[in-house]
Amino acid sequence: MKKLAFIGLGTMGMPMARNLLKAGYPLTVFNRTEAKAQELAQEGAQVAATPADAARGADVLFTNVSNDQALLDVLLGENGVLEGAHEGLTVLDCSTVSPETSRRAERELAARGASFLDTPVTGSKPAAIDGTLVFMVGGSEDVFRQHADLFETLGSRSIYLGPSGSGSSAKLAHNTIVGINALALAEGLSLAAKSGLDPEKFLGIVMAGAANSRQAELKGSKIITRNFETQFSLQLMLKDLLLAADQTAKFQLPLPLLHAASTLYQMGLSKGLGEQDLCSVIQCYEDWLGAQVAKPDAEQR
Amino acid sequence: MKKLAFIGLGTMGMPMARNLLKAGYPLTVFNRTEAKAQELAQEGAQVAATPADAARGADVLFTNVSNDQALLDVLLGENGVLEGAHEGLTVLDCSTVSPETSRRAERELAARGASFLDTPVTGSKPAAIDGTLVFMVGGSEDVFRQHADLFETLGSRSIYLGPSGSGSSAKLAHNTIVGINALALAEGLSLAAKSGLDPEKFLGIVMAGAANSRQAELKGSKIITRNFETQFSLQLMLKDLLLAADQTAKFQLPLPLLHAASTLYQMGLSKGLGEQDLCSVIQCYEDWLGAQVAKPDAEQR
Repeated sequence: MKKLAFIGLGTMGMPMARNLLKAGYPLTVFNRTEAKAQELAQEGAQVAATPADAARGADVLFTNVSNDQALLDVLLGENGVLEGAHEGLTVLDCSTVSPETSRRAERELAARGASFLDTPVTGSKPAAIDGTLVFMVGGSEDVFRQHADLFETLGSRSIYLGPSGSGSSAKLAHNTIVGINALALAEGLSLAAKSGLDPEKFLGIVMAGAANSRQAELKGSKIITRNFETQFSLQLMLKDLLLAADQTAKFQLPLPLLHAASTLYQMGLSKGLGEQDLCSVIQCYEDWLGAQVAKPDAEQR
Repeated sequence: MKKLAFIGLGTMGMPMARNLLKAGYPLTVFNRTEAKAQELAQEGAQVAATPADAARGADVLFTNVSNDQALLDVLLGENGVLEGAHEGLTVLDCSTVSPETSRRAERELAARGASFLDTPVTGSKPAAIDGTLVFMVGGSEDVFRQHADLFETLGSRSIYLGPSGSGSSAKLAHNTIVGINALALAEGLSLAAKSGLDPEKFLGIVMAGAANSRQAELKGSKIITRNFETQFSLQLMLKDLLLAADQTAKFQLPLPLLHAASTLYQMGLSKGLGEQDLCSVIQCYEDWLGAQVAKPDAEQR
C-alpha cells in the first residue's frame, strides 16, 4: 500500500488526512502547529519533525496550506520537501495558489525526479469530512491516473484539466464565481430588506427561481439567522479573488465584477471579519442599510 | 366562472393567456400588435378593440407589458383600463415595473372601486408554457386569496409579500441576483478560457461545486454552444437592473455589483445584443479575450 504524508492540517487538511488514515493508508503528518499533528498521532499517524522528513519516507505527499508563500516555504524552504524529495515521490497540492506557483513547484520537484500535481478542490469543510470533494487536476495525466485511488478516497470526482497549473487556474476561475454569487445574494437580500420585505420569504423566492445558487442554498439562511461560523473564511476568499485578479492583469482581461467583489471582501477584512465565514460580508451592506437583513426596518420604506 | 381579460401577448403573456384559455376561463385579449390577439381568437378568445373594452367585461384583467411607461399607457392612457374599470374588477399586473408605478396603479384603480395587485413572476418562457411560474404578490391579501385559482392555473407557487409594490420590489431584488449571477458565470468562463482550460470541462466543475447557480445550469452550455436564442432578453435584464438601481439611489444604498452589472449589460446593448438572450453578454468579454469561450486559444496561455 502506498505510504502517504500530509502537510497542513487546517480546516480542510485535517479531515482529509483523517479519511486517508481511515482508508488504511500508512500516514506521516507534519503541521506547523504541532498539536494538530499529535491529534492525528493518537489515531495512528506518524509525526514527522520536518517537511523533508515527511517526504523521505513517502510515495505520495499531500500539501494543503493557506497561500503561495506557505507552499513555497514548505516545499523549497529550509528542511522543506525538496530536501527529502526522491524519485518515485509524487506531491499532490490541494492548496489554492497561483498557476505560476504550481508550475514553479512542478519544475523544482522534477529536477529531483519527483512529480507534482496541482489538485485544488471545491467543496468546503463538510465535503472534506464526507470525502465528497471535487478535485481539479493539473500536471502529468499519467501521474494523475496512478493516484486515482487517493482521489476516490477523498472525493466524489476528480477532473483532469491539462498541464501543470491547470488545476490552479480552474480553482481561481471557480472561486471568482463563488465570490461574486455570494455577493449577488448579499445585494439582493439588502435591497429586499430595505424595500421592507421579509428576508426569509424573499430567500424562498430566490431559491425557487432563476436567482438560485449554491451560495444561496448554503449561506442564505445562515445570513438571516446571523450564523457566521466559518466554513470558508472571508480572508481566504479575498486571497483567491486577488490571485484571480493577478491573472486577469497578466491576461489584460477586464473582469469588472471580480474587481468590485474584491473591494467588498477587502472592506469586510477592514471591518475585522477576516476569520469569519465569507457570508459575513453582508455586514458591510448592513452598515449602509442601517439595519440587519434579519430584521427588516419597515419604517424606512 | 370568472371572466378574464389579458393585455400584452408577448413572450410570457402569450403562453400564460393560452393556459387560462385551456383551463376553460372565458378570455378577452388585447395586444398592441393585433396579429397575436387574432392567433388566440382562433383558440377561442374574444378580441377587444381597446384596453378599456377589455376591462369593461372582465372580473379579472391581467397585464403583462414590457416597462413602466407601457403599463401606465395601458392603464391610464386614452381608452385605457381605467376608463373601463368598475367595482369588482381586479387587475393583476405580471409586468416587471418599479414599486412606485405599482402603487400608483393601485391608487388610480382604487379610486374607481377596482383592485390592483403587483404579481410579477420568476421563471422564463418555459415556465410560462408549463404553468410553473412563481408569483411574487403585493397588494391586498384578501384580493390575493380571492384569486388563488388563477395563480394555481399559471404557476407552481404564489407568495404574498405585503402591501402594494412588495411584489415589484421582490422582483427587482430577485433579478438583481439573476443579472449578477449570469455575469459571475461569464467572468469565470472568460478567465478559465483565457487560462487555456476547456470551457466544457470547467463548466462541469462549476456545476459540481460551490460555484453552481441556476444561471450556470440554464445558460452555461448555451454560451459554449453559441445559442443565444432569447429566453429572457438582454435589454429586459438591463431595464430591470436600472429599475433596481433607481431603488438603491432612493434608499441611499450602495450596491457595487449591481452597478457594475448594469454597465456590462449596457455595453451589450451598445453592441446590438439587446434582443438576444441575456447570456449573449459573454460577447462583451470575448471582445477583451480576443477569442470565443467556446474555443480556448491555448496559444495565448
